[in-house]
Amino acid sequence: MLVIMKKEASKEEVCLVEQTINRLGFCTNTVKNSTRTIISITGNPDQAIVYYLENLPGVAEIIKATKSYILVTKQFHSGKSVIKVGSAEIGGSELAVIAGPCAVESKEQVLKTAAVVAKSGAKFFRGGAFKPRTSPYSFQGLGEDGLKMLAEVRERFGLNIITEAMDERGVDLVIKYADCVQIGARNMQNFSLLKYVGRLNIPVLLKRGMSATLDEFLLAAEYIMSEGNHNIILCERGIRTFSTHARNTLDLSIVPAVQNISHLPIVVDPSHGTGRNYMVAPLAKASVAVGADGLMLEVHPCPEEALCDGAQALTFDQYTKLYEEVLEIRKVSCEKTANLTM
Amino acid sequence: MLVIMKKEASKEEVCLVEQTINRLGFCTNTVKNSTRTIISITGNPDQAIVYYLENLPGVAEIIKATKSYILVTKQFHSGKSVIKVGSAEIGGSELAVIAGPCAVESKEQVLKTAAVVAKSGAKFFRGGAFKPRTSPYSFQGLGEDGLKMLAEVRERFGLNIITEAMDERGVDLVIKYADCVQIGARNMQNFSLLKYVGRLNIPVLLKRGMSATLDEFLLAAEYIMSEGNHNIILCERGIRTFSTHARNTLDLSIVPAVQNISHLPIVVDPSHGTGRNYMVAPLAKASVAVGADGLMLEVHPCPEEALCDGAQALTFDQYTKLYEEVLEIRKVSCEKTANLTM
Amino acid sequence: MLVIMKKEASKEEVCLVEQTINRLGFCTNTVKNSTRTIISITGNPDQAIVYYLENLPGVAEIIKATKSYILVTKQFHSGKSVIKVGSAEIGGSELAVIAGPCAVESKEQVLKTAAVVAKSGAKFFRGGAFKPRTSPYSFQGLGEDGLKMLAEVRERFGLNIITEAMDERGVDLVIKYADCVQIGARNMQNFSLLKYVGRLNIPVLLKRGMSATLDEFLLAAEYIMSEGNHNIILCERGIRTFSTHARNTLDLSIVPAVQNISHLPIVVDPSHGTGRNYMVAPLAKASVAVGADGLMLEVHPCPEEALCDGAQALTFDQYTKLYEEVLEIRKVSCEKTANLTM
Amino acid sequence: MLVIMKKEASKEEVCLVEQTINRLGFCTNTVKNSTRTIISITGNPDQAIVYYLENLPGVAEIIKATKSYILVTKQFHSGKSVIKVGSAEIGGSELAVIAGPCAVESKEQVLKTAAVVAKSGAKFFRGGAFKPRTSPYSFQGLGEDGLKMLAEVRERFGLNIITEAMDERGVDLVIKYADCVQIGARNMQNFSLLKYVGRLNIPVLLKRGMSATLDEFLLAAEYIMSEGNHNIILCERGIRTFSTHARNTLDLSIVPAVQNISHLPIVVDPSHGTGRNYMVAPLAKASVAVGADGLMLEVHPCPEEALCDGAQALTFDQYTKLYEEVLEIRKVSCEKTANLTM
Repeated sequence: MLVIMKKEASKEEVCLVEQTINRLGFCTNTVKNSTRTIISITGNPDQAIVYYLENLPGVAEIIKATKSYILVTKQFHSGKSVIKVGSAEIGGSELAVIAGPCAVESKEQVLKTAAVVAKSGAKFFRGGAFKPRTSPYSFQGLGEDGLKMLAEVRERFGLNIITEAMDERGVDLVIKYADCVQIGARNMQNFSLLKYVGRLNIPVLLKRGMSATLDEFLLAAEYIMSEGNHNIILCERGIRTFSTHARNTLDLSIVPAVQNISHLPIVVDPSHGTGRNYMVAPLAKASVAVGADGLMLEVHPCPEEALCDGAQALTFDQYTKLYEEVLEIRKVSCEKTANLTM
Repeated sequence: MLVIMKKEASKEEVCLVEQTINRLGFCTNTVKNSTRTIISITGNPDQAIVYYLENLPGVAEIIKATKSYILVTKQFHSGKSVIKVGSAEIGGSELAVIAGPCAVESKEQVLKTAAVVAKSGAKFFRGGAFKPRTSPYSFQGLGEDGLKMLAEVRERFGLNIITEAMDERGVDLVIKYADCVQIGARNMQNFSLLKYVGRLNIPVLLKRGMSATLDEFLLAAEYIMSEGNHNIILCERGIRTFSTHARNTLDLSIVPAVQNISHLPIVVDPSHGTGRNYMVAPLAKASVAVGADGLMLEVHPCPEEALCDGAQALTFDQYTKLYEEVLEIRKVSCEKTANLTM
Repeated sequence: MLVIMKKEASKEEVCLVEQTINRLGFCTNTVKNSTRTIISITGNPDQAIVYYLENLPGVAEIIKATKSYILVTKQFHSGKSVIKVGSAEIGGSELAVIAGPCAVESKEQVLKTAAVVAKSGAKFFRGGAFKPRTSPYSFQGLGEDGLKMLAEVRERFGLNIITEAMDERGVDLVIKYADCVQIGARNMQNFSLLKYVGRLNIPVLLKRGMSATLDEFLLAAEYIMSEGNHNIILCERGIRTFSTHARNTLDLSIVPAVQNISHLPIVVDPSHGTGRNYMVAPLAKASVAVGADGLMLEVHPCPEEALCDGAQALTFDQYTKLYEEVLEIRKVSCEKTANLTM
Repeated sequence: MLVIMKKEASKEEVCLVEQTINRLGFCTNTVKNSTRTIISITGNPDQAIVYYLENLPGVAEIIKATKSYILVTKQFHSGKSVIKVGSAEIGGSELAVIAGPCAVESKEQVLKTAAVVAKSGAKFFRGGAFKPRTSPYSFQGLGEDGLKMLAEVRERFGLNIITEAMDERGVDLVIKYADCVQIGARNMQNFSLLKYVGRLNIPVLLKRGMSATLDEFLLAAEYIMSEGNHNIILCERGIRTFSTHARNTLDLSIVPAVQNISHLPIVVDPSHGTGRNYMVAPLAKASVAVGADGLMLEVHPCPEEALCDGAQALTFDQYTKLYEEVLEIRKVSCEKTANLTM
C-alpha cells in the first residue's frame, strides 16, 4: 500500500503519517522525489488502515499497489505519455524509427549511415560509443570520440541522438552530446544507475533485461520515476529462452501487456531481438502491427565488416525498403485499432 | 548423411548400399515409406564415402543432412508446399483463417459460432472433441458426439474442419468426420502417433511443442513425412519461458526461421499463444505481418461460460473486426514483401 | 473441489451427488476408477456447498483440491508409498539404483553390463528396446528382440527390469518381459497412454517432461492413479532451460518439492539430466544427498561405441566406484535427515 | 586468439605486435592490466598468424582462446586457486560456510546471529547493507551504519565479512569495513563495476546472473581478472527458468562445469537458489555432495520478521543441525572423490 502525499505536504505531516503507520504495527519506507513524497507500507496492512490515514493532513491519496509500482501505471497518469526526445516525440501518433549502427566505428561510417537514415524520414539516430561486451577483449566502443561523431550527426542531419551509457561517468558524457540516454538490458536492474538517471532531466530509453518479467521491467522504470524523471521509453529487445534459432526470443506480447497497465511508450528492437539479418524485416513489421510506438533498427554501410553484431545489421537498401513497409503497416494498423479498442 | 534411393530401386539395390556402408565401417538406419527408401548413415562418414556410393545402382542422391532432416527442406522440395484441406488450401496466396471454439460443447454452440465464422469469409473451422487437459478431472471433450457436430458444421456452412486427435483411435474417428487432423503440442514428440498419421492420407496440422527447438519441430514433421504423408501444416502456439504476463511466449521468429529452411506452410495460434483475450488481436496482426500463412483463433458465443480456456476466446464482435484487420495487413504485407525478398 | 465417494457407493448415490451439485449451479466431471468414484466440481464453489453434500449417502470425503490433484498427495495417503518392482522395492529405506545401457544393442552388451550391475549390488536394470529418437533416421531400438534380451538378464542375474514403452502395443510387450514400464519425458502428457497404463497392474516409472512444472508432473501421475494404478515412481531427468553447458538442467529442488506434497517415491537420472560423462558422478552424489529414493544411471561396456547417448554413459569402472560413493552418502544423509525433519 | 605479452614487455614491443597483426589484415584489442598486456586478435585469424607473431620480442605466449577467456582457465593457472578472505580461505580443503542474515537490520540481529554462526565453526559472515531490491519502495538496506555493525561482528567473533556493493561508492565503503565484496546477480554484467573491483586489492565474490550461461559467468570473472584482481570466488545462486516450485532453479551442474575449465573456487547459495525454507537443507547437502567449495546460507533470529527474504532464512536450530550434516557429507564426498578423479 502506498500513501501519496500532497505536493505541498510538510515534513511534519509526512512524519505524522509514518508514526501513525508504525503505531498500527507496520513498517514504512519513504521515497521523496523532486515533486512529492510516497510512503510505502510494508507488511500487508488491511483496508482498515485506510480509515486511519486518509484524513491525516497532507495525504493526497492511498493506493493499494499490489505490484508495488504506481508511477508507471495508468492509475497515476491516465493519458498516454508522449516523450519529447530532442526535436521529436516518441509515443505520439507517429511511428518512431531509431536507426543507426550498433557501434560508432568512424566518422565516415556514422555520416554515411546518418545520410540514409535522415533521407528515409526517420527522426532518431542510434549508435553506441560505450559498448557492453560480454568479453573484455572485444571492441568496447570509441567513448567520448564516438559521442562527438554522434553530435556531428545531429548537427548535420537534424537527427535526434539516442546512445547508451553504462555508468555515471558515461551518463554525464552522454548528456553533453545526445538527446536520450539508453540503459541497456544488462543494466536494467543496476538500481544505482537507475536512480542516477532518475535525478536528471534527460529522456531515458530503458531496455528490458534478458530475463526480466513484466513487473521487474515496470519496476525498473518505477525506480527512475521515483527519483523524479518521468521521461521514459521502454524497449523490448528479446528475452533469453531455450530457443536457439534466433539470438533472443522477441516477446511481442509485452507490448499489449505494457499498454494495458502503463502510460509509458514502448518501442521494439528486432535487430538485437533476433540477431539475424533475414529475420529483422519480418519481425519489424510484426512489431509495428502489434502496436509498438517505434522501432530500433541496426543499419550499417557494410554489415560484414561491422566491429559489433554485423550479422544482424541491415544494409542501406534493406533499411530503406523496410522503412516504407513499416509505415504502411502502421497506417493500416492504427486506423483499424482505433475501432477495436475495448 | 542420407542416401535417397530411386523410387524404382529394388530390394537388392537397397541391400547392396547398406552392405557397402557397413563394409566401410559405418552403421545404417533404413526408412522405407510409401514412395521411396532413405538410408541414413550414422557415425560421421566423410566426403570420401560419397564416391563409393554415388554410382551404385538405385541411388538417386546423397545428401549431407547435418540436421538429420531432409524431406521438410527446400533442398528436397524447392517450391512452397500448398496443402489442400477439404475444399480450400493452406500455404497459398490467401491467408488461412481457422476459427472456432476451443472445445466443442454443444450443437448450439458450434452452429452459432460457425455461422459467424462462415460469414466472415474464413474457410476453416476448429473445435476440440478430444481435449488434452492437464488434470484428469477437467472436461475431456465430447468425443465422437463432438465430431458429429463438427461434421454438421461442414455440411451446413461449407467450412473445412480441423480437429485434434490424441491417439490412434481418435485419429481413426477424426478421419471419418473432419478434413484435417491436429496433433497437439503435448504430442509433438509422440513418435508413435506421428508415424501413425504419417501412413494416412489426411492433412496434418502439427503444433510446436511447448519447449521444442526449431530442429525438433521440423524433425517431428520429418517423422510424419518419412512415412509418406507430405501434407503437413506447422503451427506456432507459444513456447514456455520464465515470462508470466501471457500464458505462453508467442515466438514469431519461428515463422521466418521455418520459411528459411522448409517448404511447409506455417500458421500461428495467438489464442493459445497468449491465453489472454486482450492480447489476441494485436498478436494476430503481428502474426500476419511476420508472414504466417494463417491464423488459428478461438471464438466463443459467450467466452466467460466456456468449459475450456474461456479467458482467451474472442467474442463474435471481436472476431469479426479482427478478421477485417488481418486481411488488410496481409494485403499490405504481401505486396511489399514481394519486393524485399533477398 | 473433489467429492470422494465411498468404495461401496452405488450408481444412484453417485447420481444424486451429481444432481445436487448441478442444482446448485455447478458443473461436474466424474472419474470412476477400479476402486472408487471421484466427482470433480468445476466453477469455484464456495465452502457452503460442503454442507449440502457431506451428508449425502455414499459420500466419503470432500476435499478442496486447489491444484486439482488429490490421489498423489499426502492428504490422500499419509505414509510414504513403497513401490514393489519385481523382487525389490523403490521408496523404502534402501537406495534404489537402476543401471544399464541407454539402449539395448546386443545380447553381449546387455549381459556384460548386467554382470557388472548385479555385482555392484544394484537391484534394477535399465535398457531401452523402444527408443524415442528426435530424428526418424536414428536408431529406434531392437523392439521385442531387445525385450527378450532384458528378460534373459532378469533370469540370469535376478535383476528387475525397467524399460520404456512409447505406445499401447509397446506397453503390452513390455508387460510380458519386464517388471516396470517407463513413460518417457516426451510422453509425460500423452494422456491416452497415461490412462492406458493406469488401467494395468504393473509399476510405472514416470519421467518428468522437459518443461513440466511440479503441478503438471503430479497431474500426470494423477492421470495414471485416477484409473486405478497406484504403483508410480516419479523420475527427475533434467529440464530445458537457456543453459547449454549440460544437455539439460537437472532440477534437484523437485525432490524436496515432491516429498513435501506427495507420498510417491522419486528417483533422479543424472545421465540424461546432464548428458556429459564427467558430470554424472557429482550430480549422482548430489541427487542422493538431496534425498532422492534412487538413481537411474547409464552404463555401457564401451561408451564411445554406444548407438545412443554414448557421451553420457559411465564405464564399468566409473560405475562401480560411483555405486560405493553414493551408498556412503546415502548412509550419512539418511541418518542425519531423520533428526532434522520438521 | 590472444597474444599474452611478457611482464617486462615494453610499449614498443606491444606496438610492434599490434602493427604486425594489423598488417596481416586483422583488428586488435589491447588490455593492459597491472601485471601484463594481452592483445586480442579479432576476425578469425588462422594458425599461420602464429608463425608471424611467436618470435616477436616481448611475446610470451599465443593462445587460441575460442571462448575469449583465458585468465580464468586452467590453461592459465594450472593449480586450483585458493582465495584468502580475511583470516581464512575459500577453495582449499576445508568447506567454506558463509552464513548470516539476508539484510543487516539491527545490531542486535547481527550480533545474535553471529554468535550462532561463530559457535558452529563457520569462518565467514554474510549480511547486506546495500540491498538490490526489485521495488524502489522496499527496504534498501542500512548503508554505512549496517557496515559498521558487520565490522563489529568481525571484531567480536573473528568472523570474516562478505557483503554486497552495488556501485563504486558502495565498493569504497565495503572495503573499509569488510573482507570481501560481493557482486550480486543483477550486476554480473555491470561491466563498469566489474572493471572497478578489478583494479582493487580485495577478494570478490561474484554471483552468477539470473540468466547467465557458463561462458558469460566466466567472462564476467575474466573482466575482473583482466584488470589485475585475481581473487575471485564464483557463486551459483539459481537461474531463472519456467519452473515455479522454487524461487529459482539451482543449477548444480555448473559446479563440475566450472571445475572442468577454471581454477577459481565456486560456492553455492541454496537460500536464494530455492527461496523456500524447507528446501534449503536438502539443497545445501546436494551442493556439498556435488563438490562445491562452500555454501552461502541465510540465517535469521526470527525468519518470519525478516525485512527481506524471510521465507528462505534458516532458524538458528536449523542452521546448526545443517552445519553438522554438511560437514559429514563433505568428509565422505572428498575422501571418495579423490579416488574417482579421471
